[in-house]
Amino acid sequence: MENLEKILRFIVEIEKLKDVHRKTRPVGLSRYENSAEHSWHVCLSALMLYQHADEPVDINRVIKMLLIHDLGEIDAGDTIIYASETPELKAAEAEGVKRVLGLLPEGMDTEFITLWYEFEAGETADAKFAKAVDRVPPLLHNLHGDGHSWRAHDVSKAQVFSINERIGKGCLALWELLKIKLNVAVTKGWLK
Amino acid sequence: MENLEKILRFIVEIEKLKDVHRKTRPVGLSRYENSAEHSWHVCLSALMLYQHADEPVDINRVIKMLLIHDLGEIDAGDTIIYASETPELKAAEAEGVKRVLGLLPEGMDTEFITLWYEFEAGETADAKFAKAVDRVPPLLHNLHGDGHSWRAHDVSKAQVFSINERIGKGCLALWELLKIKLNVAVTKGWLK
Repeated sequence: MENLEKILRFIVEIEKLKDVHRKTRPVGLSRYENSAEHSWHVCLSALMLYQHADEPVDINRVIKMLLIHDLGEIDAGDTIIYASETPELKAAEAEGVKRVLGLLPEGMDTEFITLWYEFEAGETADAKFAKAVDRVPPLLHNLHGDGHSWRAHDVSKAQVFSINERIGKGCLALWELLKIKLNVAVTKGWLK
Repeated sequence: MENLEKILRFIVEIEKLKDVHRKTRPVGLSRYENSAEHSWHVCLSALMLYQHADEPVDINRVIKMLLIHDLGEIDAGDTIIYASETPELKAAEAEGVKRVLGLLPEGMDTEFITLWYEFEAGETADAKFAKAVDRVPPLLHNLHGDGHSWRAHDVSKAQVFSINERIGKGCLALWELLKIKLNVAVTKGWLK
């Protein structure tokens, strides 16, 4: 009973991720995306894309990584990727992940904290693929939404091509396809 | 390339689940929950609860079920559970699931359509547990939110105890714990 109570407290705490707002809008919507629905979106995207990963991946581990990858934002908030990869922000996210997972019954957090660090390091095949998929929806939001987030945050063509190169580290064919679409956005003037 | 294009089209199509509104509000928020963030919430809840399932479950299959379980709502919409389990509504959801999964490269849909029907039937250990977990957040929303959805939709105590009995079919201890909390809601007058 005590352990179940702790898990219920965790389930209530993670509700807060539904109130962390990202910098892009879902296709067709005027509001900004939140990190909870984003997490679902990348999990299901990974499930459909993993057979195209360049190295074999364990899709079950990838999905677990993606289910928890943004939990640190409950405390640290969401920052646009083009400004977010600083040691200070990553440390704040790590603290947040540990606090939230620390609500679980004793010992349960270890597996998921380790998985979170693996994702962040982006070195294993699973993490490279998870990080690749994590970048796909924000690009699609901009590509289907007149580049709204690039324009609002003065993100340059060079930044978009550089940051999203990680897609190619998990799935090169997907990155090649997305680059074609990004170049169309450049010709339309959405990305400069 | 053609297959990747199809998967990207699917990834864009499922964005629509972020605009399907449910009948409860996430804890602490004044807006209604959408079915995309709900899907993430139940996947991560299942991951933390599955060791308490009464029968052994394959958590990876459970998570896949829960990632796709609401896709039919893109076409059929969300209906409160106390009125939704009619053959007509279930048929509309099945058609919706098939249409959306049908956007994927040929043959990819079969596994997931089968999984969706397994979830709906609720007979296997995995489906019983997935259906149990699916009911937990709406109860927590009401328990932490003055019974807002029960009161708004005139849902009776008898209905709540009867529909949510399925939690006990996947995890009896969890249902026993939630019944204690529901009885507190009764004494507070949130549930009549």
